Amino acid sequence: MFETLRRYVPVLDWGRRYNREALQSDMMAAVIVTIMLIPQSLAYAMLAGLPPEAGLYASILPIILYAIFGTSRALAVGPVAVVSLMTAAAVGQVAEQGTAGYAVAALTLAAMSGAILLGMGLLRLGFLANFLSHPVIAGFITASGLLIAASQIKHVLGISASGHTLPEMLGSIWTNLGEVNPITLVIGVTATGFLFWVRKGLKPLLLRRGMRPRLADVVQKAGPVLAVVVTTLAVWGLGLSDRGVSIVGAVPQSLPPLTLPSLDFGLLTALFVPALLISVIGFVESISVAQTLAAKKRQRIDPNQELIGLGAANLGAGFTGGYPVTGGFARSVVNFDAGAETPAAGAYTAVGLAIAAMALTPLIYFLPTATLAATIIVAVLSLVDFSILKTAWTYSKADFAAVTATILLTLVFGVETGVSAGVILSILLHLYKTSKPHVAEVGLVPGTQHFRNIHRHKVETDPAVLTIRIDESLYFPNARFLEDYVLDRVGTGGPIRHVVLMCSAVNVIDFSALEALEALNHRLRDMGITLHLSEVKGPVTDRLKKTHFLDDLSGQVFLSQYDAWVALTAGPPPMKSAE
Amino acid sequence: MFETLRRYVPVLDWGRRYNREALQSDMMAAVIVTIMLIPQSLAYAMLAGLPPEAGLYASILPIILYAIFGTSRALAVGPVAVVSLMTAAAVGQVAEQGTAGYAVAALTLAAMSGAILLGMGLLRLGFLANFLSHPVIAGFITASGLLIAASQIKHVLGISASGHTLPEMLGSIWTNLGEVNPITLVIGVTATGFLFWVRKGLKPLLLRRGMRPRLADVVQKAGPVLAVVVTTLAVWGLGLSDRGVSIVGAVPQSLPPLTLPSLDFGLLTALFVPALLISVIGFVESISVAQTLAAKKRQRIDPNQELIGLGAANLGAGFTGGYPVTGGFARSVVNFDAGAETPAAGAYTAVGLAIAAMALTPLIYFLPTATLAATIIVAVLSLVDFSILKTAWTYSKADFAAVTATILLTLVFGVETGVSAGVILSILLHLYKTSKPHVAEVGLVPGTQHFRNIHRHKVETDPAVLTIRIDESLYFPNARFLEDYVLDRVGTGGPIRHVVLMCSAVNVIDFSALEALEALNHRLRDMGITLHLSEVKGPVTDRLKKTHFLDDLSGQVFLSQYDAWVALTAGPPPMKSAE
Repeated sequence: MFETLRRYVPVLDWGRRYNREALQSDMMAAVIVTIMLIPQSLAYAMLAGLPPEAGLYASILPIILYAIFGTSRALAVGPVAVVSLMTAAAVGQVAEQGTAGYAVAALTLAAMSGAILLGMGLLRLGFLANFLSHPVIAGFITASGLLIAASQIKHVLGISASGHTLPEMLGSIWTNLGEVNPITLVIGVTATGFLFWVRKGLKPLLLRRGMRPRLADVVQKAGPVLAVVVTTLAVWGLGLSDRGVSIVGAVPQSLPPLTLPSLDFGLLTALFVPALLISVIGFVESISVAQTLAAKKRQRIDPNQELIGLGAANLGAGFTGGYPVTGGFARSVVNFDAGAETPAAGAYTAVGLAIAAMALTPLIYFLPTATLAATIIVAVLSLVDFSILKTAWTYSKADFAAVTATILLTLVFGVETGVSAGVILSILLHLYKTSKPHVAEVGLVPGTQHFRNIHRHKVETDPAVLTIRIDESLYFPNARFLEDYVLDRVGTGGPIRHVVLMCSAVNVIDFSALEALEALNHRLRDMGITLHLSEVKGPVTDRLKKTHFLDDLSGQVFLSQYDAWVALTAGPPPMKSAE
Repeated sequence: MFETLRRYVPVLDWGRRYNREALQSDMMAAVIVTIMLIPQSLAYAMLAGLPPEAGLYASILPIILYAIFGTSRALAVGPVAVVSLMTAAAVGQVAEQGTAGYAVAALTLAAMSGAILLGMGLLRLGFLANFLSHPVIAGFITASGLLIAASQIKHVLGISASGHTLPEMLGSIWTNLGEVNPITLVIGVTATGFLFWVRKGLKPLLLRRGMRPRLADVVQKAGPVLAVVVTTLAVWGLGLSDRGVSIVGAVPQSLPPLTLPSLDFGLLTALFVPALLISVIGFVESISVAQTLAAKKRQRIDPNQELIGLGAANLGAGFTGGYPVTGGFARSVVNFDAGAETPAAGAYTAVGLAIAAMALTPLIYFLPTATLAATIIVAVLSLVDFSILKTAWTYSKADFAAVTATILLTLVFGVETGVSAGVILSILLHLYKTSKPHVAEVGLVPGTQHFRNIHRHKVETDPAVLTIRIDESLYFPNARFLEDYVLDRVGTGGPIRHVVLMCSAVNVIDFSALEALEALNHRLRDMGITLHLSEVKGPVTDRLKKTHFLDDLSGQVFLSQYDAWVALTAGPPPMKSAE
């Protein structure tokens, strides 16, 4: 009983062993992460089209709930760039930005996503995330990075623009280019340049000056905070907000409010597919980060329990004025590097952010949105990596097609279309390949009992025995292929008296393929040729035994291909001793 | 040049070798088929919701075009039951039965289907038909047979009813049950009973009376013609049409008219998916029949050229007042049994039907629709075969699920939904299975060089060497599975120093799986364990060589698992001579 509870509520496990050392490490990590998260939460809320406080709210209760239900020691849950962009795209279709309906739709999306994740976790459907192949994820992340950066250009220029796809965004920016605010532009470009320099040049400089690497890291992570402080002071001191510089403005000073997701059927229907995609993509992002960090400390992550942890976090976001959240890469790595020992570090971060939400919001009144945009642009451009195109091209044209389609469709038609098309294309390409399987004619490697492709290796063959190794499971898309192949091969006449199908790579024979094998057996028998099988695997044999096929088979089933060779050729071939 | 032409126009090949014997055989077959086709064409047109002449028109030009472009010697192309039902369902959604728009939509559907088939043939997409697995086809045919029979009950009862799904049809019949016409009921039930008896009891009776089997066959096939003649005479002689018996009525006496398919964009869009499904299902039905008959004479069918032949036939139907056609089972078997030698038999049948369309239509004025309905019911109930449920259940639960879903969804939601759901379900079940592949720990079968599952066979193992045979290609749905499995297996500690992945069943390693293998290699190396591969296939090796993986691999790649065993264990095991 308690075991089951402990499986679903991991805090009961690590919480009992919590001690002072862990407390100190966790507190230290929490301080660093809190400082980093304040500007990031505001910025991502803006990216999602929500007021800045939504970003803070989405980082408080969700973190605590994940600390209770999640399995990763270092994962930091909250708003992330890609999910914020997807939220903007989904909610933008059902409500006008800036309205109360928009905020309600966003938190409803979070609650739906939470329910979906929780359901997947309880049904143990974590494996579904595997259908997002590596090329599709890589392509999607790169394209999303570009989309997100493009969506922030308007804030750097101080103009208004709209759109959820690259052509829409660029077109809208082009149209409104006349309205550029020069002061905003200066702030935005300077902040962007500064943050790029912080990311690339600051740490080496500090190290050269003799700073300890750990401290240099912390200083580098505080870069965005410095940009926020300096630009806020500049706008306040020089009265720039009166000269058209867009600022964050009044943010309510409060703890996260209690909110209720909408139960409007039309809204729920419209948001279902986006909620599903956000859930799956958020889960994939989160689990990748969690597994990477866990591997470094030889810990294991339970994907199905992660679904439950993320589900609880998103439900929490839905009931406290937030929007969809997941485990973020940057924040989790910072948390890990800062020495977080347990999920309690997340809980302390939540306390820090709650204090910020209550006490610090007046201080960001004059914070220019251009600075937040600069934070986002610098963060997401590190996600953009076209090298996947080259590696995929070298390795496999099918994987290359999946990456390219995902990138292009994401940019041109938006995130949902892009990632869905990528997944569907990956599956179709796989089915296409398996429908035309690789088939090799094999012979005996001299001096061994091993059989290989006659075209690749120097092997012994017997003109009366045709041995075909089928390099694919036999199932409906390729059921007729084998029949056609064998009949074409023997149809040329010649001395073939035995056909052996070497089934070492056949993992399944489905009902359609069984029909095809039966047909092949009859046709070959009509031609005076016997059909044999060799190296049929246990699970496949078990299933064939339930049918009449093995009784009707004109030939035999051999345990190994070598047994078949010995039985069907005149005698054993000359055999060297094994080494 | 001429070779290419001959490939696409097979008549140029067999036409040059045409002689008097072939002509006689073909003429004889044509006469028999024509007699059988007249009532069948009228009946199927009624099933499709079209006037009776449409069935004749659909059997004339299409047959001739197939004779020119098709590859089967015996296939008889024309209206068939399943496609007629699908036509009724598709056209019923865009036009009212009995209107001119309905007929135009039907011939437009034929033309679209022709264009799709032709396109698939030129792009050599014949393999796509393989995605209709055997269980899906079997379930679909059975459910369609029931649906078609149900759709004809109203004609037997002499009531009006509507609907394209079983619940709709039965509900509609129930509602209108008060209107039953007793005379129609007598004609319908008698004709149905008579035709069932002809099918089951007539031939044995004739044989017992000493009739030659060939002739008994012909008499049996003429059964429907007898029913048509007798009931027509009865209606005419007794004046039953004045007492509420529904009759065929006036049918224009003419050759097929020249018609033009509609180019209305809305109509084309609405009909696209039905046209695609009709094309694929028609093709599958046709190719199955053609291959069965070709096998009996050791001939071969070219699936891609068949697509072209059927495409031409359907285009022909679209331009001559017909509706979608395909190669039918019953008529093709009759054609084959009657001795047809070449596709020319089809052309002579077309001439026979053209004469019927011009001269015989006044004779069927008093033909009761109940007789046509009886013809259809008896023909389609032979398609209904629930034994597939039992065999599929025994063999594989996944195949059983596909059959059951196809049958139920076809009956309840109609043919399009049923067959689409069956195909999608088959694919999803396959993907699910491959995402959790079978993995076996293997050891050496004593006295051989062969390795098998340690749980199924008595084999030798070495505690320092863990050998895992992966029974599936490694690709994105299962990429993480292997990593998790191996780490779980070695994570228990113990003396394992080498992990060997036996790749005899790995037909593909895709990009996602390559990433997972790289991760596995690094993790195992961190634990002091070397990772080896064995029996990697040629195409897989070729691809791995393009990457750094083989350079980074901590262990080796062995040609055979036995080589790995010899190299990694202390020395070769005691070895008996090979028999």
